[in-house]
Amino acid sequence: MQLNETHDPTLRSWVPGADDADSDFPLQNLPYGTFRHTDAEPWRAGVAIGRHILDLGRLAASAPFDGLAGQALAACAAAEHDGRLNGLMALGADHWHALRLALSRALRADAGQSAGRPLLEAALRPMAGARHATPARIGDYTDFYISLHHATAVGRQFRPEQPLLPNYKWVPIGYHGRASSLGVLPAFHRPVGQTRPPREDAPPVFGPSQRLDYELEMAIYIGQGNPQGRRIPIEDAENHVFGLGLLNDWSARDIQAWEYQPLGPFLGKSFASTISPWIVTLEALAPFRAPLHRPAGDPAPLPYLASDRNAAAGAFDVRLQVDLSTEQSRRAGHPAATLSRSNFRDAYWTVAQLVAHHTVNGCNLQAGDLLGTGTLSGPRPEEAGSLLELAEGGKSPLALPWGETRAFLQDGDEVRLSAHCVAPDRRRIGFGSACGRVLPADWA
Amino acid sequence: MQLNETHDPTLRSWVPGADDADSDFPLQNLPYGTFRHTDAEPWRAGVAIGRHILDLGRLAASAPFDGLAGQALAACAAAEHDGRLNGLMALGADHWHALRLALSRALRADAGQSAGRPLLEAALRPMAGARHATPARIGDYTDFYISLHHATAVGRQFRPEQPLLPNYKWVPIGYHGRASSLGVLPAFHRPVGQTRPPREDAPPVFGPSQRLDYELEMAIYIGQGNPQGRRIPIEDAENHVFGLGLLNDWSARDIQAWEYQPLGPFLGKSFASTISPWIVTLEALAPFRAPLHRPAGDPAPLPYLASDRNAAAGAFDVRLQVDLSTEQSRRAGHPAATLSRSNFRDAYWTVAQLVAHHTVNGCNLQAGDLLGTGTLSGPRPEEAGSLLELAEGGKSPLALPWGETRAFLQDGDEVRLSAHCVAPDRRRIGFGSACGRVLPADWA
Repeated sequence: MQLNETHDPTLRSWVPGADDADSDFPLQNLPYGTFRHTDAEPWRAGVAIGRHILDLGRLAASAPFDGLAGQALAACAAAEHDGRLNGLMALGADHWHALRLALSRALRADAGQSAGRPLLEAALRPMAGARHATPARIGDYTDFYISLHHATAVGRQFRPEQPLLPNYKWVPIGYHGRASSLGVLPAFHRPVGQTRPPREDAPPVFGPSQRLDYELEMAIYIGQGNPQGRRIPIEDAENHVFGLGLLNDWSARDIQAWEYQPLGPFLGKSFASTISPWIVTLEALAPFRAPLHRPAGDPAPLPYLASDRNAAAGAFDVRLQVDLSTEQSRRAGHPAATLSRSNFRDAYWTVAQLVAHHTVNGCNLQAGDLLGTGTLSGPRPEEAGSLLELAEGGKSPLALPWGETRAFLQDGDEVRLSAHCVAPDRRRIGFGSACGRVLPADWA
Repeated sequence: MQLNETHDPTLRSWVPGADDADSDFPLQNLPYGTFRHTDAEPWRAGVAIGRHILDLGRLAASAPFDGLAGQALAACAAAEHDGRLNGLMALGADHWHALRLALSRALRADAGQSAGRPLLEAALRPMAGARHATPARIGDYTDFYISLHHATAVGRQFRPEQPLLPNYKWVPIGYHGRASSLGVLPAFHRPVGQTRPPREDAPPVFGPSQRLDYELEMAIYIGQGNPQGRRIPIEDAENHVFGLGLLNDWSARDIQAWEYQPLGPFLGKSFASTISPWIVTLEALAPFRAPLHRPAGDPAPLPYLASDRNAAAGAFDVRLQVDLSTEQSRRAGHPAATLSRSNFRDAYWTVAQLVAHHTVNGCNLQAGDLLGTGTLSGPRPEEAGSLLELAEGGKSPLALPWGETRAFLQDGDEVRLSAHCVAPDRRRIGFGSACGRVLPADWA
């Protein structure tokens, strides 16, 4: 994706709040989501701009755009009347670009006196009070494991003599996740399940998880898919990616530890996964590309995972952050505590490599499929993307500013993942946040 | 599910072929599927009867049934115009029973002179020449590992000192599978991917899998789902199951062996999974219930996995069979070779236990979700449900009757899974078959 006029950092919008320095959603961003304000409304596709949402369903009714942009807008409005973006996602990069360009032009400050502006004003809804649904109908959810730092830190707890398995630097390790329980979930119940017996001859313990954790991840949304049996070459991989969001892959470490051999995580993950409501398009992220960093001495990726473009600019410079509030902190009015910061740039594998790997065996991806990156921990211990790492498996509980400590999550804890890119002119391109709260276990 | 008039073994049908002794589809069966004869036709829901398919879309147009049966029939006809059965599945057991009863009465020999018969005759289509789509829109596909015999045999190849892991007799081991590549697939390309390096300091091998295998499984289709956060008690579990089919979980053992640590199978499975077109309802299987067999000395299941009903009749007596033909055998006109036979009854965990376990953490199941059982190997070595077991990981290739041998599958090989129940009067309730052929790898 080349830089184009939609990336011009000098662009300003006539929409209130869009030009605020701390806004996640300036004119250069234009992320997509699904929203409504009351249960009586249908879900609709929208674009975030400043403190507003542009209602694409409403806008499409007046057919303001021609050509590919008009087709793309119509796909947003149609989408089975549920506001999901699969129709737009399936159209492909030319349509995505055309709609972005049309929206960018229509929302610019210098378009303020155009004949079309009343149509756009009529389609602006406040972001305040909006609720969000999962932006796509997610057919399959795959979770990867692309942070070398996370894999090493977790591996060290289980296998001190061999933290990193021999396949890690060759294979982008991934597994299938549960799609039904993934969504824009404001809260979920602490999972119940079996955990390891206290002694070898004792039965397993059954009850609420005692080692509930979060995982700081990014979500990759597939746009156009591929036919079964036909792989996507790495050179073409990003044309199949619609955009990125945030993903909290909540994990019950104790349930997982007992169940995961030999077939991998299952009930330790499948109770809930929380995503952010907004999808930032790959086009919006074009100014924030970064070279792929492989430590000196590491093997070169196999040819199907390598391209010049991927080496030069396959990564994304996205700043990530985890914040925690608790029942006690909210009651006392304390601000949330920042648990860690990391950067997507530090991952070992790129978005393009994940798509190429996922399809190399002929597996078909479909519009709306979600690929999780796995926990995005940075190279330093304080950049870890989970409590398992930060509190060293429970051995070093974190001290929170208001006096509590945390080895794992307690009922009432609320975790907020957020992310943004910063351009040289300090303008933000933000992802909003993925926010979820732990409710007590429901034994009923 | 109680026995009722639809199970009466003396029932006969006026539909030609339904009463043939070797028919999989007598009046007592009435399995559901999705079919069409030409690309120009829409997919439609149908019921197999003898050598015919009753077109439920066509039948619904004349609204022959009242009440719950009429509602259920309408759900089959509506279903988003794609013939998928999710609408019927979501209605629940009372509706399923009502439609089965209405169809059974309408297709009986003694209904031959009824006023409604012309409507049914007009909706009968030949099974010959029918093509089938996946009978449900499968949101999530979960694969379990419920044969103790399979788990032990496979474990012995990797861990001779500890074939069965300590969790096996407590946890119904399962993992998430890939839904997009699962279907009624007549053929698929041999997968390409990374396999283990020949030496520790060498790069992995990249190319077509050399250890391609089949897995004999049953497929469990979820009917009514559960809300996220609310588990399904074992006593209620079977009310959430619509029916059973066959599943071949093709496996590239060499790709899987290199990739699967620490997060489980991924590309070694996700290239293709083949299901049978017909779903036999749980109600049709009521005469074939069997007690759950746990070897003496094994621990009792934890309370959430135990019920009197499950112990007394949680299993199903379903006879399973795997047949193989090759390019050479078909050219020479040889019949397919039967590789093994086993029985679903010998599994360690029951359908009800899988549903209770899957949801105990709050995970939501949805109508049309598919649970695979995992490879159903019997207690004797010749009852193994995969080549990995039958040929002992390649060490003891199978001799085929026409002179070829097989350690793993070759291009052109076609594997046919089939299953049936046999009632005391020798009447069959059959599942049809899940049939798929291996095409050469496509490197393009």
